[in-house]
Amino acid sequence: MHRTKVRVVEEALDANNTIAAANRADFDRAGVTVVNFMSAPGAGKTTLLERVVASLPGVRVGVLEGDVQGSMDADRLASLHVPVTQINTGAGFGGECHLDANMVRSAIPSLPLQDIDLLIVENVGNLVCPAEFRIGEDVRVMVSAVTEGVDKPLKYPLMYRACELVIVNKIDLLPHLDVDLDHLLYNIDQVHPDVERIVTSATTGEGIEAWRDWLIRIASREEALAAG
Amino acid sequence: MHRTKVRVVEEALDANNTIAAANRADFDRAGVTVVNFMSAPGAGKTTLLERVVASLPGVRVGVLEGDVQGSMDADRLASLHVPVTQINTGAGFGGECHLDANMVRSAIPSLPLQDIDLLIVENVGNLVCPAEFRIGEDVRVMVSAVTEGVDKPLKYPLMYRACELVIVNKIDLLPHLDVDLDHLLYNIDQVHPDVERIVTSATTGEGIEAWRDWLIRIASREEALAAG
Repeated sequence: MHRTKVRVVEEALDANNTIAAANRADFDRAGVTVVNFMSAPGAGKTTLLERVVASLPGVRVGVLEGDVQGSMDADRLASLHVPVTQINTGAGFGGECHLDANMVRSAIPSLPLQDIDLLIVENVGNLVCPAEFRIGEDVRVMVSAVTEGVDKPLKYPLMYRACELVIVNKIDLLPHLDVDLDHLLYNIDQVHPDVERIVTSATTGEGIEAWRDWLIRIASREEALAAG
Repeated sequence: MHRTKVRVVEEALDANNTIAAANRADFDRAGVTVVNFMSAPGAGKTTLLERVVASLPGVRVGVLEGDVQGSMDADRLASLHVPVTQINTGAGFGGECHLDANMVRSAIPSLPLQDIDLLIVENVGNLVCPAEFRIGEDVRVMVSAVTEGVDKPLKYPLMYRACELVIVNKIDLLPHLDVDLDHLLYNIDQVHPDVERIVTSATTGEGIEAWRDWLIRIASREEALAAG
């Protein structure tokens, strides 16, 4: 029983990787850098995007929103006049807990790839499965809110390891929490030594400039790589 | 492609329900009430258990801990001298994002069912899949932390609908958040009208007495049902 189940999962991941490669080829051809943006529910992904998507000099941004159901986050971002496309994962059974490459593939015809340089894919809020499914992205970023406690890197290590950048958010709440920021950063280092990190508060604006600069740098880096 | 995938999932859920029924029969035979305890990562499940498990008059508690990897929560609870059993879901691929009936079944021989009245199963932190997989429980409870924002019931409705009790936790942080408690409670009512709820702060102790009373009541209710 268990062995059969694992085999099915591995086949699903193989098929996913094949489709992710096709997505990646389409994005490369269009010259679009793709960020897979992940976190637990309510860590602040949408707010962190609201703070930067309309103010990236020289970088035209589009957003692909993944949610089990609804379009609340897409509506928030569309009000900033950036192109937003919604994927709902709720069809099928109770709702998929992650985006996979085929869901993203189905959205590609709806994406204005010729009009953007950077596509940010806001994944379903979940610290487990989104890290397991490539979608054709160039880079993975996660948000780790200090309100979730210091132990999350040790409990969900794959997510922290899969990402090139960890944003430690909600630091304005630290004075009111029994959470030691250094301990959280230490635990991040335990599972992904020297991973780049930015400490932010979407409320006070601390770290937002660094987050904006990071996105601009990633868009230029991928452009330089594409130019060879 | 999509149709095939859905069929596989439905078969998996059918098999899960069959095994969940077998678990339930074993728990009933032992006279043990089972709570499936769920939330997003870092909502405060373990802390809410720490506050009550050693102080339920007349109810002997055991805990089954589900984590992708590690045993940090189990160690915290074991220090309170309640029997704790750990399931890690990390085998297979990158880690299962939920407990299923077969994982719980594999743990039953390790559970001291003759020595407990109430088994609390702390599920993997995730607002999607744990709600889809019955494990043989009598009742489902979720924790919704106010730090996650007011929109979570609308984005993850199945979890809120699947539960008999919603604990709204971390209310001590409300003065520091742009979160309206009434709006969150209203959104909970939108997806699960009149579901029972307890508003708590594991930090200040507010609502903990109500949470303790609820667990005692559930244990007695199931005992009365079993007595016919």
